[in-house]
Amino acid sequence: MTLHQMTSKDNLLALESKYCSWGDTVHYAKELNIFKRAEGIYLYDQDDVEYLDLQMWYSAANFGYKNQRLNEALKRQIDTLPQLACQYLHEEKIQLATKISQHMEKTFGVKGRVHFNVGGAAAIEDALKIVRKHTGKNLMFSFMGGYHGRTFGATSITSSYRYREPFGHFSERANFIPYPYQFRCPEGKDAKTCCDLSCLKRFEKLFESEYYSVLNPKNNNCEMGAFFIEPVQATGGYIIPPADYFKGLKKVLDKHNILLVDDEIQMGFYRTGKMWAIEHFGVVPDIVVFGKALTNGLNPISGIWAKEELISPNVFPPGMTHATFSSNPLGTAAGLEVIKLIEESNFSETVPQKGKYFVSLLNKLQKKYLQIGEVDGLGLAIRIEMCQKDGFTPNRELTDAMMNIGLSGKLTTGGKQRGLILDVGGYYKNVFTLAPSLYITEKEIDLAVDLFEETLQKGIVTTA
Amino acid sequence: MTLHQMTSKDNLLALESKYCSWGDTVHYAKELNIFKRAEGIYLYDQDDVEYLDLQMWYSAANFGYKNQRLNEALKRQIDTLPQLACQYLHEEKIQLATKISQHMEKTFGVKGRVHFNVGGAAAIEDALKIVRKHTGKNLMFSFMGGYHGRTFGATSITSSYRYREPFGHFSERANFIPYPYQFRCPEGKDAKTCCDLSCLKRFEKLFESEYYSVLNPKNNNCEMGAFFIEPVQATGGYIIPPADYFKGLKKVLDKHNILLVDDEIQMGFYRTGKMWAIEHFGVVPDIVVFGKALTNGLNPISGIWAKEELISPNVFPPGMTHATFSSNPLGTAAGLEVIKLIEESNFSETVPQKGKYFVSLLNKLQKKYLQIGEVDGLGLAIRIEMCQKDGFTPNRELTDAMMNIGLSGKLTTGGKQRGLILDVGGYYKNVFTLAPSLYITEKEIDLAVDLFEETLQKGIVTTA
Amino acid sequence: MTLHQMTSKDNLLALESKYCSWGDTVHYAKELNIFKRAEGIYLYDQDDVEYLDLQMWYSAANFGYKNQRLNEALKRQIDTLPQLACQYLHEEKIQLATKISQHMEKTFGVKGRVHFNVGGAAAIEDALKIVRKHTGKNLMFSFMGGYHGRTFGATSITSSYRYREPFGHFSERANFIPYPYQFRCPEGKDAKTCCDLSCLKRFEKLFESEYYSVLNPKNNNCEMGAFFIEPVQATGGYIIPPADYFKGLKKVLDKHNILLVDDEIQMGFYRTGKMWAIEHFGVVPDIVVFGKALTNGLNPISGIWAKEELISPNVFPPGMTHATFSSNPLGTAAGLEVIKLIEESNFSETVPQKGKYFVSLLNKLQKKYLQIGEVDGLGLAIRIEMCQKDGFTPNRELTDAMMNIGLSGKLTTGGKQRGLILDVGGYYKNVFTLAPSLYITEKEIDLAVDLFEETLQKGIVTTA
Amino acid sequence: MTLHQMTSKDNLLALESKYCSWGDTVHYAKELNIFKRAEGIYLYDQDDVEYLDLQMWYSAANFGYKNQRLNEALKRQIDTLPQLACQYLHEEKIQLATKISQHMEKTFGVKGRVHFNVGGAAAIEDALKIVRKHTGKNLMFSFMGGYHGRTFGATSITSSYRYREPFGHFSERANFIPYPYQFRCPEGKDAKTCCDLSCLKRFEKLFESEYYSVLNPKNNNCEMGAFFIEPVQATGGYIIPPADYFKGLKKVLDKHNILLVDDEIQMGFYRTGKMWAIEHFGVVPDIVVFGKALTNGLNPISGIWAKEELISPNVFPPGMTHATFSSNPLGTAAGLEVIKLIEESNFSETVPQKGKYFVSLLNKLQKKYLQIGEVDGLGLAIRIEMCQKDGFTPNRELTDAMMNIGLSGKLTTGGKQRGLILDVGGYYKNVFTLAPSLYITEKEIDLAVDLFEETLQKGIVTTA
Repeated sequence: MTLHQMTSKDNLLALESKYCSWGDTVHYAKELNIFKRAEGIYLYDQDDVEYLDLQMWYSAANFGYKNQRLNEALKRQIDTLPQLACQYLHEEKIQLATKISQHMEKTFGVKGRVHFNVGGAAAIEDALKIVRKHTGKNLMFSFMGGYHGRTFGATSITSSYRYREPFGHFSERANFIPYPYQFRCPEGKDAKTCCDLSCLKRFEKLFESEYYSVLNPKNNNCEMGAFFIEPVQATGGYIIPPADYFKGLKKVLDKHNILLVDDEIQMGFYRTGKMWAIEHFGVVPDIVVFGKALTNGLNPISGIWAKEELISPNVFPPGMTHATFSSNPLGTAAGLEVIKLIEESNFSETVPQKGKYFVSLLNKLQKKYLQIGEVDGLGLAIRIEMCQKDGFTPNRELTDAMMNIGLSGKLTTGGKQRGLILDVGGYYKNVFTLAPSLYITEKEIDLAVDLFEETLQKGIVTTA
Repeated sequence: MTLHQMTSKDNLLALESKYCSWGDTVHYAKELNIFKRAEGIYLYDQDDVEYLDLQMWYSAANFGYKNQRLNEALKRQIDTLPQLACQYLHEEKIQLATKISQHMEKTFGVKGRVHFNVGGAAAIEDALKIVRKHTGKNLMFSFMGGYHGRTFGATSITSSYRYREPFGHFSERANFIPYPYQFRCPEGKDAKTCCDLSCLKRFEKLFESEYYSVLNPKNNNCEMGAFFIEPVQATGGYIIPPADYFKGLKKVLDKHNILLVDDEIQMGFYRTGKMWAIEHFGVVPDIVVFGKALTNGLNPISGIWAKEELISPNVFPPGMTHATFSSNPLGTAAGLEVIKLIEESNFSETVPQKGKYFVSLLNKLQKKYLQIGEVDGLGLAIRIEMCQKDGFTPNRELTDAMMNIGLSGKLTTGGKQRGLILDVGGYYKNVFTLAPSLYITEKEIDLAVDLFEETLQKGIVTTA
Repeated sequence: MTLHQMTSKDNLLALESKYCSWGDTVHYAKELNIFKRAEGIYLYDQDDVEYLDLQMWYSAANFGYKNQRLNEALKRQIDTLPQLACQYLHEEKIQLATKISQHMEKTFGVKGRVHFNVGGAAAIEDALKIVRKHTGKNLMFSFMGGYHGRTFGATSITSSYRYREPFGHFSERANFIPYPYQFRCPEGKDAKTCCDLSCLKRFEKLFESEYYSVLNPKNNNCEMGAFFIEPVQATGGYIIPPADYFKGLKKVLDKHNILLVDDEIQMGFYRTGKMWAIEHFGVVPDIVVFGKALTNGLNPISGIWAKEELISPNVFPPGMTHATFSSNPLGTAAGLEVIKLIEESNFSETVPQKGKYFVSLLNKLQKKYLQIGEVDGLGLAIRIEMCQKDGFTPNRELTDAMMNIGLSGKLTTGGKQRGLILDVGGYYKNVFTLAPSLYITEKEIDLAVDLFEETLQKGIVTTA
Repeated sequence: MTLHQMTSKDNLLALESKYCSWGDTVHYAKELNIFKRAEGIYLYDQDDVEYLDLQMWYSAANFGYKNQRLNEALKRQIDTLPQLACQYLHEEKIQLATKISQHMEKTFGVKGRVHFNVGGAAAIEDALKIVRKHTGKNLMFSFMGGYHGRTFGATSITSSYRYREPFGHFSERANFIPYPYQFRCPEGKDAKTCCDLSCLKRFEKLFESEYYSVLNPKNNNCEMGAFFIEPVQATGGYIIPPADYFKGLKKVLDKHNILLVDDEIQMGFYRTGKMWAIEHFGVVPDIVVFGKALTNGLNPISGIWAKEELISPNVFPPGMTHATFSSNPLGTAAGLEVIKLIEESNFSETVPQKGKYFVSLLNKLQKKYLQIGEVDGLGLAIRIEMCQKDGFTPNRELTDAMMNIGLSGKLTTGGKQRGLILDVGGYYKNVFTLAPSLYITEKEIDLAVDLFEETLQKGIVTTA
């Protein structure tokens, strides 16, 4: 069979079925599409059907598919220095690290450095290395509902047992703490009344007696070296915490010398309207981990920023870690252009405005459909929690149906055949986590909401 | 400070010193260069000094810097589908997996599938997942001198204690077995006389009694699930094993149901004159891990191929693992073009020829300089072991000096100012591991050897 | 120095200071005594001062010091078969295992077997072995406030971080769950109002979503193999749970195939008025662990009973575990006589009566002294929680003072110089855990309470 | 069924079959005996058949069964202070610790302290605690063929995989090193020619390069905290090392700051003709672990001695560890009398003499029977390795047959019906490990050897 023959959908799916591992997430979908091109907020399949994408590669393509400016920067690098071993320097690496560190200094008033790697999970592992070296502790706190990646180190601090189950014993399994998920309050309180942060008080109580298992109060030494957080839980369902939660949490951590590691892999780079989501919550993290949108998806480069005391050459000296592609020139060039683009934009204004508009439309929808249990958003990180008609019991069936209806590319809203790309998350797999392009227009939002409503109506029928 | 001002070498190095983590390997060098462009077998610094590169990004850029054909393929993808969430399909992913799996079928007569990830270490972690799931074992065998990456899972099976030391206890530390390193025989035998594989017999003996700690002979159940190998040790110093070693090893592993995982991250894609280095040694691996040269360094995509029985959807079903960038379209497009380029080339002839020529020149050099303890090569994976005048005692000082002399860009061989890029490896950091472009010409090899000799002469003076 | 010279208190303490490890708990006391003889409920020091003992070796000597019947049985064994390798059988071993298993059949209607070891911690490790073999899980649930011993396996499931802290990483650290400690309700509820078991509901909630970190709901597979409990927390402060707690807990465990391991090391053998404390709470454990009072302290023999399906020869075959002294004949003979003594007594009536009387006197005391925050008891396991005058804030200082006053042997209640042996436990080290001889008389209880009051009065003065 | 009825052999075996765990080693034997009494070197079954015992409870009853002096000491303690919580002092504890520490000072010139526990495995765990605390390392070296107990900590450093296999992952699995077992030289050398300690050189070589996996040569920091040894391997088959092996080993350990922990649980208390077996080999251990014969089997008390710098109160302070029965008064009283008995005896002369005589007779036997591959001994620790007629291939079948013939109690040597108690050990379960009473007479040795020969002859017939 020649390559040409192989490109029909049927042929390709036959080959996929035979030669591709199904161990990734492709086969979560009922029917498989093959996508051919992308532009702006749209994906196109082999038949050129247009899919409005509300997830943008789980927030990796914040700046739109095939963003010309970023693509040009990448091509320029291809034409000059496409390859360079990471033990040698090139200017884009230095400039990118400088830009990020200077943002930190300006925003948080703290000096630090950047270390690159590839893939978010590997950056999480680098953060773990810094924590383990600095604190001498192998164990961490992290959140129930949290997700930090799928390497063994990252899986150890990722809450879902399903990810560990097939692979035997995990010796560094984190101590998982309930996340302040107001709509489904871990304390069983009513989401609509004012949150009293009692889950935070429960956490604080752990440090009162050695018998609560985490602290030796005699010397204030905690068994866990750091708390790994997502300021807005991503895979967990774009859950936005109460405004004062992290300030309170940081106070507890500081009291017991526990580091705060801020995982911004999905929320970073203005998804929430700020460079980092944590900037909304009034605390200074000790380590920030980033990836995904750093290159708008053009290269898997990722990285961490850490406070100088954790990463200065005398505590994190040459050879502490290494990855062939860590600061690869194509990745740093794309990343650097992203930062420049950000500097020249005003996302801190436009993203909240767009988010507000998007949420306002969804709120209207919520009033029409009992099945929309909650709509919430921070910038353009937006959640829609699908429920039974009681507005609370998770409705996974409907959520699944809607996702598959969107993917089938047979919607008709807006006068032509279209698809809608939705991503499902949440503790009960009943939350649409919306991550549209930061360049989405009001008109496109209108269309998106209309498509969503069509999908919802069809989903209700299907699952009735 | 503006970006423009930042690009002078002094300014850049000042920023690097302040904002970049030194925890990678950049600061292993005495003096730092900044490279500006690359082409063919050459790197160029800011002053346009030309450096002949004999390491090619540790064998990631096998097909030459700025290879036009591969670069064009990447650009085409940038212009059509630069981004796509990995839960959706695009044809290049399917074609690339198909090509690799079909190569396996043809070469080894075994069916299997490909699973992608980013960065070699993450692919190693995927291999560990498959082994842990299939065998129920957390522990592995691997080689002393072996290197498989720096995530926690990969570090657990990487021999050097220096990599684990700063990070506390490693609960899955591998059982490390001596590698058949003939020049420094673990059995203390003379390298020049015929190897009797006594290190292999020693390994075999471990399975004789439960008291040797790895097997319950009553049910032939081994504590280790797999043996992770590099057929030619890479970081360990491009060490080539005796021809029959792996055949013997596989027999032992098969007898006790231990999987063989073949790490081809550095040796794959014709570095040794064959697609995989293991093809020289007459055994069929259960899992193959690859990365680096898959895209000629244009994208960090990596992957594993595993036998159907280990990776079929019923044993490695959807959701077993995941990475945002695993089968990113830019990576698969570059990878697919690499495979096509390979199919249309005759590397299996040219690489051995070039390697033979290169080694023959180095052998001549060895006769002139007592400090060259050993020269060996498989295809274009070539080792030069630097020693004291006894031709055996490791000479790290000379090796370091030569590496730095090469990097300083002040060689004069060939009539102009030049540099020479050498990579140092080996158990005693006294081995030059040469990985030239597979397109290197005889003339370029002549120049490379001349530059190497100049470097050696200067190194001998410096360290005298 | 001859042995004779060595026996003066000063000499002995000088030797102790020099040659004995201080790593046990001897040096918790401010001043050290040396005890010379014991009888009934009394200890005597070198000057023959009498100490009324309210802890009886943490409940190891339930049947009184120097119990003649038990001592005679031990001596008979010394005169016939004092030694026998545990790979050979002697009748007392078989009879003791039979007696215990038959008690289980009668009480719980469940068949099972007994496995012996020495020391409670080793028996806990045997229970862990059975759980790990049966479930394939290395991880366990256990209670905050729980204590199961100090070997590494037992320490992993013992809550206090202080016990793990000096010894590096613990790869099997349990998932510690709050215990239903009503006086200091983990839910912050008022102890005096009716308990609504909301801590149990919180535990139950963990199983609702994979994101709560312990269950894969798709296949109902839990990451933890068993829940290790003390029905009445011992070291934790003789805390008695709400009547229905364990019934509810067992229901959750059964639903998710989690074993219940009942640690009766301190509460077994009628401390609470029943053979096992768990008999009060209406659930059938899968494994029972016992030790201490099995021999009235005459031999460290311990053991487990497990349900047939967990311990039958086909699942727990010869060689699964071993200990030289596991079923040593002196231990089994003493244990067997204890069981016969129990069979011929009516502890199930007398112990509750005595306990009730004891608690009633303490309740009177509580009304006089604000510092007694709580008095509670189950049989002759009695707790007195010492507080500040608010009756709630833990008062460790007063508790310590009282313990040391009792130990100093200078009380005068009852008309002669006396001491009082008190044991301190509790999450805040402010609880007297009373474990008097099961043969204590009402008169002795009167004396004990009077001595306690004298100690309390002096303690209040000292700490004022 | 009444207890009286239960004492017939059939009834007892029926109960055993139903109510006793088979998970210990009782059911290794083909037919089960029940023993009724013991005296001197003899055990007696229910029919009063006399069994000459050549294993003495795996060397726990060194001083003869029912030793009157020791039994009387135990009874005296029963009559004065049979019970005392270990947080309080009694003189026998202090005196016993003093005696042992003073022996160390005299023999090794080193100050230290004693810490008690119960059961050898728990003492090993205490040694692990000291090593982990002192070195910050969780990992240890120990010997292939070594045995240190069956708690999880002890099993981690015990070589046989069979002991770990049923219980999942062991995160602290030791790095097992070949033991210098000359008869089956790990280096494949001829046992009869002079040993050149090449296995020691192989161990030493591990420290040459970081790539050998255990050392960072840059700072001389080893991944393993201690080497746990048995100077004469016990369960491994009473293997006696070359005279200079441990001196050489200690030199390597000292060079890299690795502690030496000497497990004397089976060889201590004059089994080899000295207090500790290590005293034969010219090295000073950092920690000594002892148990078994400390009380002649009258109580499971065990303990460690450690150098002052490892165990002084400022590094191993109160509360580091704890066990209810650790320094129980019956145990310390028995142990103290054992030490006094030793002081008043001249075992250092008599044991070697008796051992020499015993071995000389066995050597004669060896000349008659090709199946005796090796006879060796140190004091009264004697090994007989049973082989095929080639005098080398392990003969487990014959060994098993002989053990069962001895146990069947139907030998006739010496003019009456007798049995012979033999213990089987060795890497291939083909070694009789003889541990006769230290009081065995020449006449009894004659009888023992005659019984052994009868057993051998019958065994040869049976297995022919």
